[in-house]
Amino acid sequence: MRRLDNSEAGFEAAFERLIDRETPAQADVDARVAAIIADVRARGDAAVLEYTRELDRHPAREMAALEVPHTRLKAALDAMPGAQRAALEAAAERITQFAESQKLTDHSYADAHGNRLGQVVRPIERAGIYAPGGKAAYPSSVLMNALPARVAGVGQVVMVSPAPEGVVNDWVLAAAALAGVDRFFTVGGAQAVAALAWGTETIPGVDKIVGPGNAYVAAAKRQVFGRVGIESVAGPSEVLILADGTGDPDWAALDLFAQAEHDEDARALLVSPDAAHLDAVAAAVERLLPDQPRRAIIEASLARHGALIQVADMAEAVALSNRIAPEHLELAVDAPGELLDDIRHAGAVFMGHYSPEAFGDYCAGPNHVLPTGRTARFSSALGVYDFQKRLSIVEAGAPGAARLAPVAAELARGEGLHAHAASAEARGGRDRG
Amino acid sequence: MRRLDNSEAGFEAAFERLIDRETPAQADVDARVAAIIADVRARGDAAVLEYTRELDRHPAREMAALEVPHTRLKAALDAMPGAQRAALEAAAERITQFAESQKLTDHSYADAHGNRLGQVVRPIERAGIYAPGGKAAYPSSVLMNALPARVAGVGQVVMVSPAPEGVVNDWVLAAAALAGVDRFFTVGGAQAVAALAWGTETIPGVDKIVGPGNAYVAAAKRQVFGRVGIESVAGPSEVLILADGTGDPDWAALDLFAQAEHDEDARALLVSPDAAHLDAVAAAVERLLPDQPRRAIIEASLARHGALIQVADMAEAVALSNRIAPEHLELAVDAPGELLDDIRHAGAVFMGHYSPEAFGDYCAGPNHVLPTGRTARFSSALGVYDFQKRLSIVEAGAPGAARLAPVAAELARGEGLHAHAASAEARGGRDRG
Repeated sequence: MRRLDNSEAGFEAAFERLIDRETPAQADVDARVAAIIADVRARGDAAVLEYTRELDRHPAREMAALEVPHTRLKAALDAMPGAQRAALEAAAERITQFAESQKLTDHSYADAHGNRLGQVVRPIERAGIYAPGGKAAYPSSVLMNALPARVAGVGQVVMVSPAPEGVVNDWVLAAAALAGVDRFFTVGGAQAVAALAWGTETIPGVDKIVGPGNAYVAAAKRQVFGRVGIESVAGPSEVLILADGTGDPDWAALDLFAQAEHDEDARALLVSPDAAHLDAVAAAVERLLPDQPRRAIIEASLARHGALIQVADMAEAVALSNRIAPEHLELAVDAPGELLDDIRHAGAVFMGHYSPEAFGDYCAGPNHVLPTGRTARFSSALGVYDFQKRLSIVEAGAPGAARLAPVAAELARGEGLHAHAASAEARGGRDRG
Repeated sequence: MRRLDNSEAGFEAAFERLIDRETPAQADVDARVAAIIADVRARGDAAVLEYTRELDRHPAREMAALEVPHTRLKAALDAMPGAQRAALEAAAERITQFAESQKLTDHSYADAHGNRLGQVVRPIERAGIYAPGGKAAYPSSVLMNALPARVAGVGQVVMVSPAPEGVVNDWVLAAAALAGVDRFFTVGGAQAVAALAWGTETIPGVDKIVGPGNAYVAAAKRQVFGRVGIESVAGPSEVLILADGTGDPDWAALDLFAQAEHDEDARALLVSPDAAHLDAVAAAVERLLPDQPRRAIIEASLARHGALIQVADMAEAVALSNRIAPEHLELAVDAPGELLDDIRHAGAVFMGHYSPEAFGDYCAGPNHVLPTGRTARFSSALGVYDFQKRLSIVEAGAPGAARLAPVAAELARGEGLHAHAASAEARGGRDRG
């Protein structure tokens, strides 16, 4: 693996190259996606069916064949082997419990004059979830996206997932059944996002679209943003491990592999002040790599985007971490609590040697949909709050209005908005009647 | 004013036309903005200065002249007339108090096996705020955007605001001083958004950009989304009044005016089951309009986008409201609490006759930056939470890890991610050492 040292000349340039995650502009993708969206908006089902037949080589001859009925979802769940089903149910239970813990609630307070101010919380009415299909089908992703929507009280959860050649992944169907998905369509790509954003004769329009997808899906989500909400535009996945040298080098190597095996764009970094630990991790990587079933992907990913980085001390490690704002941050140290206060940006923090990212990916409870590519500087994990809205509440009575009216009127006149001033003063000067 | 009746043929079509808020695609604006962003990114200060001289006809000959120093902000605040300053301070205090009430906090829980799950909250490091300048300069907007950032604990608040011909609005400067803005640049348009997103030699790059602006600003925010966070892309402002007929028709007319006076794209609607009340409001509009200083704008706005709508009962009124998902919803009724439970989508709800939107625009406390154009279906008011991030926390110990490991491994193997399984199982089988 690439080795960098924070004290050496040239580190800054090498580090910047390593953490530069900018995706080159894809004008061709954007234009193609815009055309698909316009077409689906104009022609609805007919366009969706055509694109699905053409791009996914799906044999369906009518739109109805692109919906997977509830009975089929349920059958997939019932057909799961016992151990797998138990694991899926255990994960679902923990994800649900975490979502419950972060639910937004109504709150309000009264000011000194009896005016009540606050917020009431309402769920989004309809949510659309994009689940990747085909080669990379992730039932865990179905749970992570759908369960927070269910906990929020979303009225209808609509899932779309491509089925190349018409083949669907039974685990994805089973997870959809377990997560309480209301309708499931085997439609993918920009055409699926367009259908969810605008609605067609068959596919219900939704209010927000979440879930990961390829470059076309990402471009489509960006283009329909505003018509509907989106949670984020996801980039390649990444892990940063801060190691004080007290951890097992084999565990560190496996954690780097777990990130790198996603795809060749994934990024796995480990930072430590302990040179001997870095040597040991490098040796473990060499030793354990040949046994990895996904060795080729891991090798490519580590070669392109991986690094072992030496720093002077853990404070320097934390400083680098804050510059990276990693999606996943593992604090592979004996006393993670001592570092946490200084961690400013990260999607999820895995505390101590017994908390590998893999727990968070599947079953710890917190969501695995996390901000990538430095966006943890300003955004957070997908959560139940993504499917809830806060409605502000202003409730003044006559005595309280008498206090607010002159303030509002003064400011309104200062902005030249005279009707605002008159509207406020109407409530301020006299009792009603 | 236009009068519609829900029971008449043709209502649906007329209502749909009224609430269709789609902005036509502006390919020319998008292309121009993309070019400005690329130029600012490439040439930094030099490009910002050129655009500001050209587009805003600002006389500055160097970048330093585009920064307003603290002493000048403070002087503007000190120079405010007493009544105006008192109003601004009263509003600031109430906005701050409301923001404090909605601050996100850390929370966590332990599962039955001693694993700790939760979130820690961190402020965004640097926030950029766009404040419109020139003709429409709104100090209230400065407070509403900057104070939640301050309450969140944002490290640096950077404000940009155009100063056509070099002229700045003293109230805006005063509000910036009061809100604790750290740096203030008289730069506007897409060039200001680009500078905040990418940083220049003089203007610090920020993590999130909020605040209203014209079509160029909106397009620029959309284009830099992903590089930085944005709160929303704002459209024209709107109010919907649901009236049971117990209100003063003059108050209703003034509230409609207050919305309509913003600009000719603003929308003001009133819905009631009481025909006599609708007649009385129409009469009040006629009678009070001639005295309005902004009469021309109000007339144009009401003619284009205003309506008085008759419905059968208040349930129908609420149903129409939920279809509109209004930015501002006034419940001009005697018992607003009885309606609130059925309100599903709105930016802010103003409860009862003594709670006009104008209170919320200036000083009630809740933010006046609200979702427009049906986006209240999936989004909320700007708040302190827009300047905070949640970092998920997973902290397992050896006994808890032994429970999580087999679940994660089972699911990982089902997805073909073998290194994930190995990483999990490394923690599950043995104590460390």
